[in-house]
Amino acid sequence: MTPGRPVPPPLGKPLILAEPPVEPAPADAPAARGTLTAAMGATSAGSGLRPLTLARREPKDDDVEIDIEYCGLCHSDVHATRGEWGSRPYPLVPGHEIVGRVRRVGSAVEDFHVGELVGVGCLVDSCRECESCLEGLEQYCERGNVGTYGVKDPRNGGAITQGGYAGTIVVDRRFVLRVPEGMDPASTAPLLCAGITTYSPLRYFDVEPGDVVGVVGLGGLGHMAVKIAKAMGAEVVVFTSSETKTAAAAELGADRVVLSRDPGAMEAAKASIDVIIDTVAAPHDLNPYLRALRLGGALFQLGLPPSDMPPVSPGLLIRRRLAYSGSLIGGIAETQEMLDFCAEHGVASDIEVVDAAGLNSAYDRMVAGDVKYRFVLDTKTLHTPSEKADA
Amino acid sequence: MTPGRPVPPPLGKPLILAEPPVEPAPADAPAARGTLTAAMGATSAGSGLRPLTLARREPKDDDVEIDIEYCGLCHSDVHATRGEWGSRPYPLVPGHEIVGRVRRVGSAVEDFHVGELVGVGCLVDSCRECESCLEGLEQYCERGNVGTYGVKDPRNGGAITQGGYAGTIVVDRRFVLRVPEGMDPASTAPLLCAGITTYSPLRYFDVEPGDVVGVVGLGGLGHMAVKIAKAMGAEVVVFTSSETKTAAAAELGADRVVLSRDPGAMEAAKASIDVIIDTVAAPHDLNPYLRALRLGGALFQLGLPPSDMPPVSPGLLIRRRLAYSGSLIGGIAETQEMLDFCAEHGVASDIEVVDAAGLNSAYDRMVAGDVKYRFVLDTKTLHTPSEKADA
Repeated sequence: MTPGRPVPPPLGKPLILAEPPVEPAPADAPAARGTLTAAMGATSAGSGLRPLTLARREPKDDDVEIDIEYCGLCHSDVHATRGEWGSRPYPLVPGHEIVGRVRRVGSAVEDFHVGELVGVGCLVDSCRECESCLEGLEQYCERGNVGTYGVKDPRNGGAITQGGYAGTIVVDRRFVLRVPEGMDPASTAPLLCAGITTYSPLRYFDVEPGDVVGVVGLGGLGHMAVKIAKAMGAEVVVFTSSETKTAAAAELGADRVVLSRDPGAMEAAKASIDVIIDTVAAPHDLNPYLRALRLGGALFQLGLPPSDMPPVSPGLLIRRRLAYSGSLIGGIAETQEMLDFCAEHGVASDIEVVDAAGLNSAYDRMVAGDVKYRFVLDTKTLHTPSEKADA
Repeated sequence: MTPGRPVPPPLGKPLILAEPPVEPAPADAPAARGTLTAAMGATSAGSGLRPLTLARREPKDDDVEIDIEYCGLCHSDVHATRGEWGSRPYPLVPGHEIVGRVRRVGSAVEDFHVGELVGVGCLVDSCRECESCLEGLEQYCERGNVGTYGVKDPRNGGAITQGGYAGTIVVDRRFVLRVPEGMDPASTAPLLCAGITTYSPLRYFDVEPGDVVGVVGLGGLGHMAVKIAKAMGAEVVVFTSSETKTAAAAELGADRVVLSRDPGAMEAAKASIDVIIDTVAAPHDLNPYLRALRLGGALFQLGLPPSDMPPVSPGLLIRRRLAYSGSLIGGIAETQEMLDFCAEHGVASDIEVVDAAGLNSAYDRMVAGDVKYRFVLDTKTLHTPSEKADA
């Protein structure tokens, strides 16, 4: 399986089957239908989000069942549910920024206990055997990681994974994170995607006090990049096309703001930055940002634009030995490290809590860029699950 | 001064002045006209190479005067003398792969002695004060390095530097390399550009035994990349569009050859390479090569195409945390390290020696790709210098 390439459902698949096996179920597949839980999901690309009932599997020996308290709304949820990234299996319950408390554990689970605050991010499994997995880089699993929603789950009969806009979730203990007590569950939820996605390249580049970090784009990912880079001791420069974001950047802790449309300001920023975290998912010209990098600097692109980017100038890369790089979320151990780091440094996401009924308008506001900086679903506002599973 | 951006001469500049000061000469500028030497250079973009007489400066306290024995022909010499990289100051004597013996030294030179085998590469000076220079990365001098030919030399009255297709050259001791005795002068010459340009990114990536190195393009740079990577203990894979190069690649020591036009071969090479040295200077699609990189791999582009490259796919960079990078020659200390490494491992360039009268046809053959793998000028074949300097 290729990461991020979910398998479309068979034609004519009925909606009523809970976590339908799309391949013959192995002999050890769980027989039980599991617990029904309320969820919000899409039944087609055009359906918007609507109430559904999910049947979660009965916890197996290594499983942790979690009562979800909050789930962050990631821009990729919008793309996935609306079918903007290609065909998806429906019904589809998105959400991979999950914080909740342990409800039940399987018989082999010793490291999590009922009532503990835990998190689940973008991954719920991987092959566990390839070089990447053995190095704790499950996000780069060579056989394809198992995303938290919308992909086949080989260890669970090939069922399509369903995400965190729901009352509960069941996840193998190896993919459950410990949320340090004292962290606010709602504003911690976005750390599981937006937080780790920006933390990982900053760590990979080995950002230290005194380094200068540039952040392009001040949305869900960008605002986390500013906070985390500051907590790492870096000087932070925000590049923005909008003068109106200057004050907001300063509030987040940015040391300087550079207006990317101002050629003089961009010229003044030339060769001044060690590493740039580019969070803009629309096609845009990277060369002005590459010019801002010092010798040996790197630009990490985190967003995947829907069409080609303008070409990067090899001359810029050659003349200052720059690297144009990318980075994908983070591994499980690194995600735990990030949570501990954020707890230690008091880093959390700036959020706006929404209830289930407000999800669709929250999506519209996300598309319009009208959120500072992350919506988080309060799962207490979900409906009561029906007696029959929709998905 | 921007590296590689030579300053055009003032209009109407007479050709007879030796190393003309294009800015008012400083008070300590050498008064002497220096020694006349035979050279081959261009007097205009269309002139081809023709016999000229250069007046080299009298050695200053820190200077080393070198009797040039051999000078490699680099593809950039063709671009520069033909004006293909923008306007150049003429007359222009190219050549930055220089090996010869010390003829005279200035009064402050203690580390070089008359008769020693030495080399000069692409740089003859830099600011010596910026962070890059202090780190031994003179090629990335923040104020612009001083190239061996065609640029203003601030410490020598702003004279335009003239390269190694000549009988002698005078260079500050800090930019003179020691060629280990026992190395063949002719086949060592190309190491000063083609060698260091490929050695530096391989070292920067920290190539070790067991790593897999890919080489794209099997010309002057590519054949050095194969030899140096093999000497570093790597497994070497050559990507070529021409089936006829398979045997040649094997002769150089390559372990495998992948035909880049064969989709099946490229698919089989997927995620198998740690670092790729791309030596192709024409615009080409890098995405097939990026697909061949393992997690955390890097592609170093060394050639500067005359027009835009097709865009790189950010998704490839993101899904395997790849780096698309560039690299520019190497610093002086690293160039010395490279020469010592090549001496230790018996690495030299595969060359064809040409005489002065054959330079223009050698250029035509280089443009046609008809050389295995580097032409080297034998300076014994130069004419006798006139009594008056042309440049």
